Amino acid sequence: MGNFIGHAAPGCFFMFFGLWWTIRYSVMWASRLGGRTTRSAHEACCCSGPLRFLKRVPIEGLVKMTIATGGIIFEQLVAHWILIDPKTGHFHILGNWQHTTMYAFFLLNGFCDVLIALKAPLPSGIDFATLSLAVSVEGLLFFYHLHGRTDLDVHVHQLLILAIAPSVAVTGLEAWNPRTVHLPMLRAALAMLQGTWLWQAGFILYPPFPGHEWDLENHENMMFVSMAFCWHILGILLFMCVVYTVVYHIYQAKEKQLGTDLELGTAVFTHAADTLGLRSGLANVSPISMTSDIKC
Amino acid sequence: MGNFIGHAAPGCFFMFFGLWWTIRYSVMWASRLGGRTTRSAHEACCCSGPLRFLKRVPIEGLVKMTIATGGIIFEQLVAHWILIDPKTGHFHILGNWQHTTMYAFFLLNGFCDVLIALKAPLPSGIDFATLSLAVSVEGLLFFYHLHGRTDLDVHVHQLLILAIAPSVAVTGLEAWNPRTVHLPMLRAALAMLQGTWLWQAGFILYPPFPGHEWDLENHENMMFVSMAFCWHILGILLFMCVVYTVVYHIYQAKEKQLGTDLELGTAVFTHAADTLGLRSGLANVSPISMTSDIKC
Amino acid sequence: MGNFIGHAAPGCFFMFFGLWWTIRYSVMWASRLGGRTTRSAHEACCCSGPLRFLKRVPIEGLVKMTIATGGIIFEQLVAHWILIDPKTGHFHILGNWQHTTMYAFFLLNGFCDVLIALKAPLPSGIDFATLSLAVSVEGLLFFYHLHGRTDLDVHVHQLLILAIAPSVAVTGLEAWNPRTVHLPMLRAALAMLQGTWLWQAGFILYPPFPGHEWDLENHENMMFVSMAFCWHILGILLFMCVVYTVVYHIYQAKEKQLGTDLELGTAVFTHAADTLGLRSGLANVSPISMTSDIKC
Amino acid sequence: MGNFIGHAAPGCFFMFFGLWWTIRYSVMWASRLGGRTTRSAHEACCCSGPLRFLKRVPIEGLVKMTIATGGIIFEQLVAHWILIDPKTGHFHILGNWQHTTMYAFFLLNGFCDVLIALKAPLPSGIDFATLSLAVSVEGLLFFYHLHGRTDLDVHVHQLLILAIAPSVAVTGLEAWNPRTVHLPMLRAALAMLQGTWLWQAGFILYPPFPGHEWDLENHENMMFVSMAFCWHILGILLFMCVVYTVVYHIYQAKEKQLGTDLELGTAVFTHAADTLGLRSGLANVSPISMTSDIKC
Repeated sequence: MGNFIGHAAPGCFFMFFGLWWTIRYSVMWASRLGGRTTRSAHEACCCSGPLRFLKRVPIEGLVKMTIATGGIIFEQLVAHWILIDPKTGHFHILGNWQHTTMYAFFLLNGFCDVLIALKAPLPSGIDFATLSLAVSVEGLLFFYHLHGRTDLDVHVHQLLILAIAPSVAVTGLEAWNPRTVHLPMLRAALAMLQGTWLWQAGFILYPPFPGHEWDLENHENMMFVSMAFCWHILGILLFMCVVYTVVYHIYQAKEKQLGTDLELGTAVFTHAADTLGLRSGLANVSPISMTSDIKC
Repeated sequence: MGNFIGHAAPGCFFMFFGLWWTIRYSVMWASRLGGRTTRSAHEACCCSGPLRFLKRVPIEGLVKMTIATGGIIFEQLVAHWILIDPKTGHFHILGNWQHTTMYAFFLLNGFCDVLIALKAPLPSGIDFATLSLAVSVEGLLFFYHLHGRTDLDVHVHQLLILAIAPSVAVTGLEAWNPRTVHLPMLRAALAMLQGTWLWQAGFILYPPFPGHEWDLENHENMMFVSMAFCWHILGILLFMCVVYTVVYHIYQAKEKQLGTDLELGTAVFTHAADTLGLRSGLANVSPISMTSDIKC
Repeated sequence: MGNFIGHAAPGCFFMFFGLWWTIRYSVMWASRLGGRTTRSAHEACCCSGPLRFLKRVPIEGLVKMTIATGGIIFEQLVAHWILIDPKTGHFHILGNWQHTTMYAFFLLNGFCDVLIALKAPLPSGIDFATLSLAVSVEGLLFFYHLHGRTDLDVHVHQLLILAIAPSVAVTGLEAWNPRTVHLPMLRAALAMLQGTWLWQAGFILYPPFPGHEWDLENHENMMFVSMAFCWHILGILLFMCVVYTVVYHIYQAKEKQLGTDLELGTAVFTHAADTLGLRSGLANVSPISMTSDIKC
Repeated sequence: MGNFIGHAAPGCFFMFFGLWWTIRYSVMWASRLGGRTTRSAHEACCCSGPLRFLKRVPIEGLVKMTIATGGIIFEQLVAHWILIDPKTGHFHILGNWQHTTMYAFFLLNGFCDVLIALKAPLPSGIDFATLSLAVSVEGLLFFYHLHGRTDLDVHVHQLLILAIAPSVAVTGLEAWNPRTVHLPMLRAALAMLQGTWLWQAGFILYPPFPGHEWDLENHENMMFVSMAFCWHILGILLFMCVVYTVVYHIYQAKEKQLGTDLELGTAVFTHAADTLGLRSGLANVSPISMTSDIKC
């Protein structure tokens, strides 16, 4: 919707998902790059401690479905499910219908997430493919509603598309190869960028505080907006660095504690293995699994 | 040809191929993801029951060749194979000649399909490469005949090109790696999208029922058309979900029936194999072949 | 140069290379797909009979260097190596200097071909990378000299760029993976397309026979030109099919003759191998090498 | 900054990095392609002799950080860290702030280089990913400040973007696969191209010597500028050929000297190995490691 809330609300959702993914994939990186023992590296592969339970329940998919359903209901509270005004014969509040369309694709994506999590007989990658589709539909609808706007409005939305286009590519690549380590983090960064930029767009195009209106045709403002986009990128990267550092140190502290417990067990186990002549076999398995983790 | 039939007829062909491929690759997915036994997974790899015969006969290529030849003859019934009008010296009904050109490329593609199916000494992938070429020629000719049309006409055709461009990419990737599981289904979806969108274009640009003419310069209509394109995508995806679910359950039911028959046979066979010391070999083969099926 | 010969001469060179590569890679395909014996498949991998000698001598690189040097000399016979006219202070016949630049890049590519053939310590792929660069420089210069031309002139050159752009991509991919079977043939097709389209551009923009001038602003002519481009593609593909079929049958005939000679030899050899217990080893090698040939 | 120095200074940095990388990767190529012994190939993998020490100290990252910090301080000496002029309420010297933004991204990249070199628990590829991001931010800011400039100015900057765009792609691919042999050299070439073209842009747009002003609307000048870009590419390639040839011969000379020393050692070692029955193992290792070096 063409107001501040209409930009801030989806912005919040994107920022929430960006933050959630940042934490989740920081745990993944920490466990892959800082793991000392095969056991914990394997067990904590994607989530440790309290996150382990969340892996089973398709929480991400359910959250997406809830938000998307909420968004559709909210938009249609205004549009009343009327597409063509029966009196004038013209289309009725098309903007809300466009947002409903976007939410419908995110709903589909959430549904696929849930199906995959429930081990439905679908090829893995469908979840990423539908996410890629949802983001590209969003980009398509943004791209085609710039018609006849002011220069600055068009520029702000073009920069938004600059955040959307790599999201489409990244999630598309993840559908093709879901086991990379860089792409999920990149997806998290792009989701946060979309979120913060939607807030920025709201502030520029529909200033919430009076007295801060922007001149929408000023060339200097356009130069500043390009630069602000780069600052958003920089800020998000620094924020993600901080999150990763914190997560990594928490993980290491837990690992050390676990390691102390484990060493005793390992010592006993190693002794037993030695006795049975299994030691060389065990020694071979552990470095290989670590390497393949890091390589992919 | 610039009328409703000229858009609806090719639309039907694309929809037919989209539907055919949806069913065919649903069977493929069902057999890969729901297969319980190595034997059936192998045998039914691409088609089960009545479809098995169709695999041998190059039915897809023959259908393509028939449609393309029919299209060429139909277009030339009007153009009479005259390219330059001998009286005026100008070109004669270039639109029909352009469609003839498109059909010629699909004819070539059908011919390659037949050659590949007959095991002619051609590298596999030529069938997908010629399909990619045929679709890109279609896109090229659409792209260059938008010159000087109305805004809405151009917009409708641009969206058509948005369905054509990924088709070119997907079939090109299939030529390179013909054993993926996602790309064929994506190709099916894009073919259906082209088909339904050609119908939509026919309805918008050449309304078949009087009294439903569209205002070809209205900005609201353009916004609706972008959204309608997304609805086509959504509708096709939901339709494909239904088709896949039905196919999967039919497949599972058959599989269960087969499984009961097979278990007896397997028991006997396993016993014999055990006696001959072949069992470990068999056990190794089966998980590997399943994994590689799912991975590719 | 802006005349018929200036388009026809480079067109001939591209057509010559396209034809040469078509024959060469037809032999490659025939030997890979129709080879009956491991020996001949290996030996004739890229060239059989008289072509074997040419493999050693870097004939392709030398031909490229000769043509490029000839082109440079020919262009500078007119420009006299003068870049800035000393009297007027303006640039002197920039068109000829642009062509000289293009030839210089093809000269560099030929030089790299020769170096690679002489087994200079360069990573394989440099030959394809420089070819990709030469073609992209050609595309860049074409792209930036369309400024202020007539519609048809621009359209003809845009179509030329549509043939150049995939050439850049294909040779770039070959630099990355030089052992594919599809890309060389695609490169041959694109080279021939460039060649025939340069002739077509010459005929349209600088008609060699009086009385056949084209109206350079006519919309119908533009539609025809797009279609003619597709016909060039179709004609080249059909021509390549014919060449491949002829080459394949010649190859098969030779193979049959060789096979008869070989069978005697093989029989003797097999007998000897049997005696020495080497037979199972030989049997394993042959199918593997065939498969890897076909797969790559 | 909009003057000659503002283009020449960053040009120098890019040329310096291009030269540094050219030498570094020439050593890499020389050691991979001309290496006679496994030992030296392994040891000198990326750097030989005096360069070996530099591998440990994260010199490249530190140099980047120094230059970027220097750039930021230098730009802010003029801008005084004031973004919005408190008197007028307008933005204050946005150009300098844009350059500060660019330097900040290169600073981040340098920081990641240092972290990776210090073996911080980060996935390899982060260094290349941040470089790719820094270059794309540079391209983004260049792209969006062409608004309302003269034709030649726009053209010169478009060509700069033609050097920046492949840099983004190449470093992005290196983040994905850091062990290729072609991409680093390509990156070196593109860095030098950016550097020399920034100098060229400075000479054209802000001529340092009076009396050499360019006519910024002349069509002939635009044609010349496209051609000059190609000449820069050609010159850089020839320069890199010379550097590689020199490096290769120095490497070979050292290798020969080492080889003589080594042969004695190897003879002794081989004798010892023979005695211990290790010889076949050694023989197997060496060709494999060489092949994998060349393949990747």
